[in-house]
Amino acid sequence: MTLPGASPALGAPLVELVLARYRERTVAELLRHIPEQSPPYLYDLAADYPTRPCKGLRAALCLATCAAFGGRSERALNPAVTVELFHNGFLVHDDIQDGSELRRGAPTLPARYGVEVALNVGNATNLLGLRRVMANRRGLGGELAWRLFEETELMCRQSLEGQALEIAWIRDNVCGLTSTDYYRMCLKKTSWYTFLYPCRSGLLVAGGAGADAGRLDRFGWYLGAAFQIQDDVLNLTGAAEEYGKEIAGDLWEGKRTLMLIHLLERATPAERARVVRHLSLTRAQRGPGAAAEVGWLLDRMAAYDCVAAAREAAAGLVAAAGREVAAVLAGAPEPPDEEAAQALAFLAALPDFVVARGR
Amino acid sequence: MTLPGASPALGAPLVELVLARYRERTVAELLRHIPEQSPPYLYDLAADYPTRPCKGLRAALCLATCAAFGGRSERALNPAVTVELFHNGFLVHDDIQDGSELRRGAPTLPARYGVEVALNVGNATNLLGLRRVMANRRGLGGELAWRLFEETELMCRQSLEGQALEIAWIRDNVCGLTSTDYYRMCLKKTSWYTFLYPCRSGLLVAGGAGADAGRLDRFGWYLGAAFQIQDDVLNLTGAAEEYGKEIAGDLWEGKRTLMLIHLLERATPAERARVVRHLSLTRAQRGPGAAAEVGWLLDRMAAYDCVAAAREAAAGLVAAAGREVAAVLAGAPEPPDEEAAQALAFLAALPDFVVARGR
Repeated sequence: MTLPGASPALGAPLVELVLARYRERTVAELLRHIPEQSPPYLYDLAADYPTRPCKGLRAALCLATCAAFGGRSERALNPAVTVELFHNGFLVHDDIQDGSELRRGAPTLPARYGVEVALNVGNATNLLGLRRVMANRRGLGGELAWRLFEETELMCRQSLEGQALEIAWIRDNVCGLTSTDYYRMCLKKTSWYTFLYPCRSGLLVAGGAGADAGRLDRFGWYLGAAFQIQDDVLNLTGAAEEYGKEIAGDLWEGKRTLMLIHLLERATPAERARVVRHLSLTRAQRGPGAAAEVGWLLDRMAAYDCVAAAREAAAGLVAAAGREVAAVLAGAPEPPDEEAAQALAFLAALPDFVVARGR
Repeated sequence: MTLPGASPALGAPLVELVLARYRERTVAELLRHIPEQSPPYLYDLAADYPTRPCKGLRAALCLATCAAFGGRSERALNPAVTVELFHNGFLVHDDIQDGSELRRGAPTLPARYGVEVALNVGNATNLLGLRRVMANRRGLGGELAWRLFEETELMCRQSLEGQALEIAWIRDNVCGLTSTDYYRMCLKKTSWYTFLYPCRSGLLVAGGAGADAGRLDRFGWYLGAAFQIQDDVLNLTGAAEEYGKEIAGDLWEGKRTLMLIHLLERATPAERARVVRHLSLTRAQRGPGAAAEVGWLLDRMAAYDCVAAAREAAAGLVAAAGREVAAVLAGAPEPPDEEAAQALAFLAALPDFVVARGR
């Protein structure tokens, strides 16, 4: 089958087009299900993050996967809204946990309304997601609705466990990690809800409750890891205005990135001891010398080519995701219409698109 | 039908006995489903609050309702564990939101591990609850499992909305509330997950997916309101060691209790203006005169008999709950065994037991 979007140069505009179209449909449907009767500072604010400027990647992936594998994308609209709601609910809780100030170019909900309100809004957003899972029963039938419930529970579990793993590494100052540990954490923390869950949901809607939901798992895993590495690289190198987060914030937090793991592996024993000591201290304990220490970490990462190595790893993962998706799409049905053809092209072009963002 | 526990004097030991027996079964079953494979600071800590000293009222209510209405309580064990998990998940999030230091006689999870870990543990506990809802499909069949899923979503929604209502009142300094507003908030914030949801779950397990789940709703509503009023009274008057929370903390927080609503209704215009001004300030804005101001509020509440009025209201609600439960239990089947007989007596004796706690 010819995949019009398989070349990166042609693929990006198509990806943007499909993202924009699916995002419009998803946001409209999402807003339609925000309850109007509500105490203030609850459902009204659950609509805040989803309507800020963003790509809507996860919902689009769900809809495109369904269309590419022979389903009608309207049937996947409710699962796509579910994906988007949980994503946004997680973001609200993440912003509480990280004490973040900015999200999608505006103050975070905890920064604007405090932790008490924001925690409720995160819970309300997840609960609205769960209500969408229940609504599948009417729209898709009991068997498929139950399968999507299972998928949703699995996705929440993977995401929570991945995040807990990362928190535990920082908290217990774990310094002997390998890239394998990092990739396993990425699979759980990032890949699952960003790629596997949307693809699995789309495949189930297209093929029914008995369909093989895992056909795109490896594609999603590779792409999620590339996505996370890219995110970590941008945190170290990106321009603040463009990226909207504190530069090198991850080094202040002690986040276990591929770059940090590489640095710990490559540093001399004396350097390694200095890195481990930096990581063992809280922000408060580090005192006024902290900025210089973060500068030294950046310098050592440059000296050992840690960022270049991470970019190379991401590129390898993107290539693997591209091969993987091409192989799976070869088994997809002939596209019956324009939407299905574009959905196939969208999936094929996604790997290059994902890693090109923010560059 | 004779209800052996209907007299308060005889009822309390029976209530304690039933609570202890059902708590033992519930906690054992709950712990059996805590995943062993886990990153640290996640599922391990989800077992923390449920194993601290507590009555296990909600789980017992679910099991007793099932047994009293002709079901085998083993069938309600999984729903009882679900009730207990969500309750404990809410507690973890509440402790983050309120900045609480103590829970069941020991440091709260956020006090001990920080907000980042605690928020995850709250989410993990709720997710374990959701897994129990899924497990009903095997144990109770698809139709009943789906009904219990609906009940769980409804309970989460009511609880969140009730809590949001209370937060919004404080945040927007709403001072024109009536006792009707307060009771509506209680129904959502307290009664639903503490009484209605356990009873409704127990009735559904006993009677099947088509059963009338709402037979004990009014009982639960009245009792929940009495329970909440009692809680608010204890916050003002209880001994710190016994109750384990900051005395008059509600007055520092500006919590809209029945006592505060009464005070705002009964105070002179000048006093009312002073109360409203106190409520409009944050803790930081109140400065060093705050303790004296809280003392003045307590004094005015005493002068206007606000605590006595609240106690009277609670007593009226307990009596109404007692009449309500007696009427509903009159329609319950003849108890086939000792457990069913004790479950009936437990339900009948619960109103007096609930309001006698902490006195």
